Amino acid sequence: MSAAIGARDSHAQIQGRTSIGFLGPRGTFSEAALRSMEVSQNADLVEYATVGQALSAVRAGEITMALVPIENSSEGTVSVTLDELATGEPLCILDEQAHPVEFALMARPGTSLTDIQQIATHPAAEAQSRGWLANNLPGVTVIPATSTAAAAAGLAEGASYDAAIAPALAAEYYGLTVVAPSIGDADAAVTRFVLVSRPTPPPPPSGSDKTTLVLFMRADHTGALLEILTELSVRGVNLTRIESRPTKKALGDYFFVVDAEGHVADERLGQAMTGLRRVCAAVRYLGSYPRHDGRESSVRTGTTDGDFVAADQWLQRVRLTGHSDNVS
Amino acid sequence: MSAAIGARDSHAQIQGRTSIGFLGPRGTFSEAALRSMEVSQNADLVEYATVGQALSAVRAGEITMALVPIENSSEGTVSVTLDELATGEPLCILDEQAHPVEFALMARPGTSLTDIQQIATHPAAEAQSRGWLANNLPGVTVIPATSTAAAAAGLAEGASYDAAIAPALAAEYYGLTVVAPSIGDADAAVTRFVLVSRPTPPPPPSGSDKTTLVLFMRADHTGALLEILTELSVRGVNLTRIESRPTKKALGDYFFVVDAEGHVADERLGQAMTGLRRVCAAVRYLGSYPRHDGRESSVRTGTTDGDFVAADQWLQRVRLTGHSDNVS
Amino acid sequence: MSAAIGARDSHAQIQGRTSIGFLGPRGTFSEAALRSMEVSQNADLVEYATVGQALSAVRAGEITMALVPIENSSEGTVSVTLDELATGEPLCILDEQAHPVEFALMARPGTSLTDIQQIATHPAAEAQSRGWLANNLPGVTVIPATSTAAAAAGLAEGASYDAAIAPALAAEYYGLTVVAPSIGDADAAVTRFVLVSRPTPPPPPSGSDKTTLVLFMRADHTGALLEILTELSVRGVNLTRIESRPTKKALGDYFFVVDAEGHVADERLGQAMTGLRRVCAAVRYLGSYPRHDGRESSVRTGTTDGDFVAADQWLQRVRLTGHSDNVS
Amino acid sequence: MSAAIGARDSHAQIQGRTSIGFLGPRGTFSEAALRSMEVSQNADLVEYATVGQALSAVRAGEITMALVPIENSSEGTVSVTLDELATGEPLCILDEQAHPVEFALMARPGTSLTDIQQIATHPAAEAQSRGWLANNLPGVTVIPATSTAAAAAGLAEGASYDAAIAPALAAEYYGLTVVAPSIGDADAAVTRFVLVSRPTPPPPPSGSDKTTLVLFMRADHTGALLEILTELSVRGVNLTRIESRPTKKALGDYFFVVDAEGHVADERLGQAMTGLRRVCAAVRYLGSYPRHDGRESSVRTGTTDGDFVAADQWLQRVRLTGHSDNVS
Repeated sequence: MSAAIGARDSHAQIQGRTSIGFLGPRGTFSEAALRSMEVSQNADLVEYATVGQALSAVRAGEITMALVPIENSSEGTVSVTLDELATGEPLCILDEQAHPVEFALMARPGTSLTDIQQIATHPAAEAQSRGWLANNLPGVTVIPATSTAAAAAGLAEGASYDAAIAPALAAEYYGLTVVAPSIGDADAAVTRFVLVSRPTPPPPPSGSDKTTLVLFMRADHTGALLEILTELSVRGVNLTRIESRPTKKALGDYFFVVDAEGHVADERLGQAMTGLRRVCAAVRYLGSYPRHDGRESSVRTGTTDGDFVAADQWLQRVRLTGHSDNVS
Repeated sequence: MSAAIGARDSHAQIQGRTSIGFLGPRGTFSEAALRSMEVSQNADLVEYATVGQALSAVRAGEITMALVPIENSSEGTVSVTLDELATGEPLCILDEQAHPVEFALMARPGTSLTDIQQIATHPAAEAQSRGWLANNLPGVTVIPATSTAAAAAGLAEGASYDAAIAPALAAEYYGLTVVAPSIGDADAAVTRFVLVSRPTPPPPPSGSDKTTLVLFMRADHTGALLEILTELSVRGVNLTRIESRPTKKALGDYFFVVDAEGHVADERLGQAMTGLRRVCAAVRYLGSYPRHDGRESSVRTGTTDGDFVAADQWLQRVRLTGHSDNVS
Repeated sequence: MSAAIGARDSHAQIQGRTSIGFLGPRGTFSEAALRSMEVSQNADLVEYATVGQALSAVRAGEITMALVPIENSSEGTVSVTLDELATGEPLCILDEQAHPVEFALMARPGTSLTDIQQIATHPAAEAQSRGWLANNLPGVTVIPATSTAAAAAGLAEGASYDAAIAPALAAEYYGLTVVAPSIGDADAAVTRFVLVSRPTPPPPPSGSDKTTLVLFMRADHTGALLEILTELSVRGVNLTRIESRPTKKALGDYFFVVDAEGHVADERLGQAMTGLRRVCAAVRYLGSYPRHDGRESSVRTGTTDGDFVAADQWLQRVRLTGHSDNVS
Repeated sequence: MSAAIGARDSHAQIQGRTSIGFLGPRGTFSEAALRSMEVSQNADLVEYATVGQALSAVRAGEITMALVPIENSSEGTVSVTLDELATGEPLCILDEQAHPVEFALMARPGTSLTDIQQIATHPAAEAQSRGWLANNLPGVTVIPATSTAAAAAGLAEGASYDAAIAPALAAEYYGLTVVAPSIGDADAAVTRFVLVSRPTPPPPPSGSDKTTLVLFMRADHTGALLEILTELSVRGVNLTRIESRPTKKALGDYFFVVDAEGHVADERLGQAMTGLRRVCAAVRYLGSYPRHDGRESSVRTGTTDGDFVAADQWLQRVRLTGHSDNVS
């Protein structure tokens, strides 16, 4: 079998087998989060060095989906993910997963805390461990690595530094010892991941859904954000999150990424989306998917699907007959 | 031919001949306004003593339509008309007409200004002539009449007062002499009349239309008016007028009558109406009709019919395929 | 004593004795409402033929105050009162009173219901008795009078009509017999009166106050009403009423009269008023006064006087020192 | 001289000499941006390894100010800077500077493009050079460095990689040769820096100012963002930027950082700030400072300082006398 065919064999589309990319190397939170999702059970898991590479593989059809980090409760947005989703070939979010971020300090077997002078880790992990390091290893030097798992892998391969900050899972993979098990600053640090595929028809509403939209403003339009929020609030749609990102065209030129309560199939969200479509230069739909926290959308009086359908039928009757509401 | 059949003969619906009611007696502005409208050319004009009687006749099918005053540039809303249209059997406005209010002081032939000590007129006409009377007939007594034309008719029939304030047309009808031709205070006093029928399918948009709606609030809903205005403004619909009227249930319980720019067939107004329908306890549509001033609706970017249709199609595509806007 | 001095003697301001005007003649609801107010106890009550005349007397300093009707739960606004207050020499509302409207059918002693063929009354009273008349006196003729009391007075003086519709109080005054005691259509019809004086410093807040404002828009300003409501709502001020009235300049040119919850001395209302002052062409303050229904204003989080004062002090500190809120 | 005194000697405050921190090492854009500002002329420039260290030094009074990056036109917000400014001991922005981001590919003298197999640089610089690298050095390996200058410095010291991506200024410092002078993807990539000190009274308005505020919401308050934007828009204050950042307490709990047009001394912004102060749990003022682009604030009718002062005086008069606007 030729290499080319072998490569194609790995494509889910051809073999009918699901393949899911994640941000490698082995042992990162991305893998841990992915393994905690049912969808990963009978799928091939494929590691990628960067978010961009994982999403490119989805776009190219080399894998079925990819799980990528989008937000961290202590560091905020993962900009590269937002930017990759917002432009280029369209992608859709199918699901989300919130995974606790627990960093461990790990070293080669036999190393004790007092031996540690140089630590390698990803800058984001360093940022979240700063407090612990200041208290427990005041004079230590921190060397940046491309990922926490790469720091652990390097240690296993005999790198010159003494320890790595990485998920506990990485210690297993690379035969290291956990010196301190949970050294993150924020007690409940959590990373939110999204499972992304090429555009597909939205799954049916689950009763607890979220919809992600990317909104590009018309040029030089002061008050655009107020306008956007009004389009949503007037139909009773709440936002759970709003992010602004630069368009990379000029300083001060932004687009917005919003997470709205509800599903694109909901009338209130659908009509809000048409309103946004008219008000914005472009609106990119990034998917409706079940919320990781299972919370139900709050529905204001007059904004159920039934209310919208009844109002549309009422309008049709008015337009056809001139008859509206009887009032005694 | 029996009396019953004769009565039915007068019904426009049966004979195919149009009959239009107006606020009598002969010689009022209502008649003058009606005669200035093309629709009156080949119609039977029927006078009624009150707005309520004219509208009851329309409701009962005794006449095809009625022209009734709805607003005066100096006295404001004609409350009885609004209240009659807002409740009871539904009616629709087909057209509107603005007619200048020019009052004349008239008397029996031979009477001069200095002879006049008692004048009869309708209180509204007195209100509009107050300035002129104070300057020109300071000590004069004004007697209230049910209408300006009734005052003129009474004069012709030998009433004890010396003059009447009425439209110049009334002098012709009743054989009186105009002593002073134009004595109204406000230079440009104008009455707006509406032509009302039983509900019919709306006429096609003329490009310069107005739509009248009656909005009943949900009980005890602070902020309802702001909500209403937002439903309209978010779709780019301007109001030309808003009136509050008591529901007659309790002091402080109101409904609103609004005149909106545009036609019920316009997408932006249609969608605003469905929004109002969901927000309000009841919405009564009182018709879309050509504006008397011929002014075109202002249409904000993103609110043409084409914009609405395109956004709806866009939503349909998103719902079916997950594909929205491409952004490079 | 010269005539000039005599004239001045009649001025309450000079003699220290309060005089209060009301809409006569004796026996109207205006008088009944006024007598139910404590302020009338030791005051001279002076009747006037019209609202305009009563208010002119206040403006001229001939009387201390006047009680005039401003709104009726079934007929709506008393336009003449609104218009008189909105323009001309400034006046202020000191207090309000809600008085039930109970109309009685009265006649000369010895008249029975079946004798009645012609009834005199004010058109507003006729409007409110229409249902009763249609049921109980179907063929009766109604003659308009300048006031309900005038109809009763005329009857007493031997007028040609058989009965009058007027407040029961009028029967006492004019020696008439009540044929039917309560013939108004709406069960709970109530007229709201306002006690008006020349401008004075507002009374201290009572804890349950209302403030009336007249708002004149800038020319041709679409969206002005939405702007006005936003100025109020953003500071947590609720409206209990809004009326539009024509400016008498052109059809479609209106001003608004609003009743807002709260007192001009309240910070939230004061700041809303300055916002309105900047947004409108003119704002006329018509007084802060205790609500007739004793209801307390609802106060949203962050809008107490303390919240406003604290925020102002906070701003002052920021401006002087650059220090604002500490956030750990 | 004791050590303690020596330590105090290094404090700018004591010696009267200005010292300004920047993000080192020597040769970064931070230094280039700082050198382009007049304030750096007679100041001691002190390098720091991280934004956090530079700001801690300002807080501790060790240096007078620090210049730190806050936003990049292609990468977006510098989260660490926002987070450092938003919490902890208060700091104030005195000025801003926008500096073009031009990356050069540099190597040890004698290296040609075709020799390059491994490049070191900061991940942000890699992100902005990705397009150029893909086109010109397709198979190259990129090694992460703590800063672009560190990559250049390492190269000079004989590191094992072949080239560095850094500002051209770094080549001068470290004796390297520029192989390709401008390899950034975005044509006009610009970094915005802010000059930060401990809180001081704001400088006088320059006519073209911006004010940065940090807004902490009340818990679980849906619609808070709409409320915030309304507080600003109702007083005619435009936003040039809004960022949401996690509070690090729970996923989905954010604060907002906004840049508003205008100066804290402006009435419209001052009143908007008091409104925000009442609506939010906390508002941190981060300074009013001249805009780098020199654009003037747009001022809506009714929102000049004069308009606010006049409205306040008007309210005072109403409160004292009951007199407001005369309307004829």
